[in-house]
Amino acid sequence: MSSRRNFIQKTAMGLAGSAVLPLLGKSAAAVAPEASAALPITVGIAGFTFAKFDVDQSIAMMKRIGVTNLSVKDIHLPLNSSDEKINAVIGKLRGAGINVYTVGVIYMRTKEAVDQAFQYARKVGVNMIVGVPSYDVLDYAEAQVKAYDIRLAIHNHGPEDKLYPGPKDVYDRIKDRDPRVGLCIDIGHAMRAGSPPEKAIRDFKDRLFDLHIKDVSQAVKEGKAIEIGRGVIDFPAVIKSLRKIKFNGVCSIEFEKDMTDPLPGIAESIGFFKGVARGGE
Amino acid sequence: MSSRRNFIQKTAMGLAGSAVLPLLGKSAAAVAPEASAALPITVGIAGFTFAKFDVDQSIAMMKRIGVTNLSVKDIHLPLNSSDEKINAVIGKLRGAGINVYTVGVIYMRTKEAVDQAFQYARKVGVNMIVGVPSYDVLDYAEAQVKAYDIRLAIHNHGPEDKLYPGPKDVYDRIKDRDPRVGLCIDIGHAMRAGSPPEKAIRDFKDRLFDLHIKDVSQAVKEGKAIEIGRGVIDFPAVIKSLRKIKFNGVCSIEFEKDMTDPLPGIAESIGFFKGVARGGE
Repeated sequence: MSSRRNFIQKTAMGLAGSAVLPLLGKSAAAVAPEASAALPITVGIAGFTFAKFDVDQSIAMMKRIGVTNLSVKDIHLPLNSSDEKINAVIGKLRGAGINVYTVGVIYMRTKEAVDQAFQYARKVGVNMIVGVPSYDVLDYAEAQVKAYDIRLAIHNHGPEDKLYPGPKDVYDRIKDRDPRVGLCIDIGHAMRAGSPPEKAIRDFKDRLFDLHIKDVSQAVKEGKAIEIGRGVIDFPAVIKSLRKIKFNGVCSIEFEKDMTDPLPGIAESIGFFKGVARGGE
Repeated sequence: MSSRRNFIQKTAMGLAGSAVLPLLGKSAAAVAPEASAALPITVGIAGFTFAKFDVDQSIAMMKRIGVTNLSVKDIHLPLNSSDEKINAVIGKLRGAGINVYTVGVIYMRTKEAVDQAFQYARKVGVNMIVGVPSYDVLDYAEAQVKAYDIRLAIHNHGPEDKLYPGPKDVYDRIKDRDPRVGLCIDIGHAMRAGSPPEKAIRDFKDRLFDLHIKDVSQAVKEGKAIEIGRGVIDFPAVIKSLRKIKFNGVCSIEFEKDMTDPLPGIAESIGFFKGVARGGE
């Protein structure tokens, strides 16, 4: 099993590193799963994890932890970047074997911000945006989803979030919209908002596009970011739910503790999440 | 489940940090398990992991990864240390909440080396030595096991080891000896020696006292140390074997890659091992 896994990982790395991908296309590159007899669980990194680091430092950390899928955050590629800047940053990431599979979290409070987000996503070459559209631009955002054929995964941000505290607050506002409008469930913020992620994953499976994976110290507003496995989230149950709904997207770890020295915590978190997935096979 | 686990971990940390343990006694402190409905899997660190670091740096890394059980290596506390030196180093470790549960690996090629090892272990205050006695001092070592009532866990070191390449090479030489003579199975070296650890754990369960947990890139002599989960060892099977035999000792991670900058690899390894254990519950 392990030899096969290594082969597949190396092959996928080779492809990601050498493929000439259209920088202005609509499709994201295929993701490289953890191969196994059970449903593969694909891990990635949410770019906010590297908020205190530049692109080169982020690449170095991703290589160290052996993760290739990245959700690019505007900290590393501003929304108003020129085409040249976008091609340079995305080209550098792809050249390092990194698969940029989405962008976000992008906040959209005006129609102009919605336009900017979709133009940016098209130029980056992803088929999904992780975003937070204000209620009054939801109709407009849905229209852009159709016009660009780019999915919109709306992100929940916990009890402090006036728009989307938990996944249900997203789902209730999008369930009758175009099927390309869905959820990025942030499982840590969901937990703090009283929504156990293993249940939310099943409840909103038809619209679940992306995940921000993290752990929190307590299942209340005051819960703090903590290494995955040390907190209150039931990760075996999360993995079981993901396999039950046959989730085929990316589980992006977003580590928000020790942000100026995050590598040990990122590594422990990635290790634990992959270990739970392997142990539950 | 998680709240209970956190409570138990905090309590155990508190006890380990504040308990006044006899520095010259024979008993090691109780270990702090990962609590769960399934058999707890207790993790530790083999001191060789910190070969390039001093005691203070080792303590800082153990705190960062949240591991409290340590097998002390002579790099950090030489075998010929004075009583004062032993009390200072062990006192510092215990004061930091670290449970020194064994010492080693200690090589014993002469009767004098055997004497030194057992005197050292008694002064440190552990009830087990992880060691490598040459064949011609095995009888003498067994006599000291009886005299000191300190267990001896003999360590296998892979295909290059002329004495004990794999766990069976240990077992065959100790199986008829005092029951306090047993094995520390180094699962990485066992794998390189053609002995899958999940089988060795079951085969030699009656004499399994300690484990050095690691992963290797290949199941041959040339296999290299690698982050746990990235190599060829079947960790779900290892965990299942440990639970099957109701192993109640410590699984000490020994990380031997990137030894001048090991923390991310240690953290990933600890995370993965704990994750597999949690996922397999």
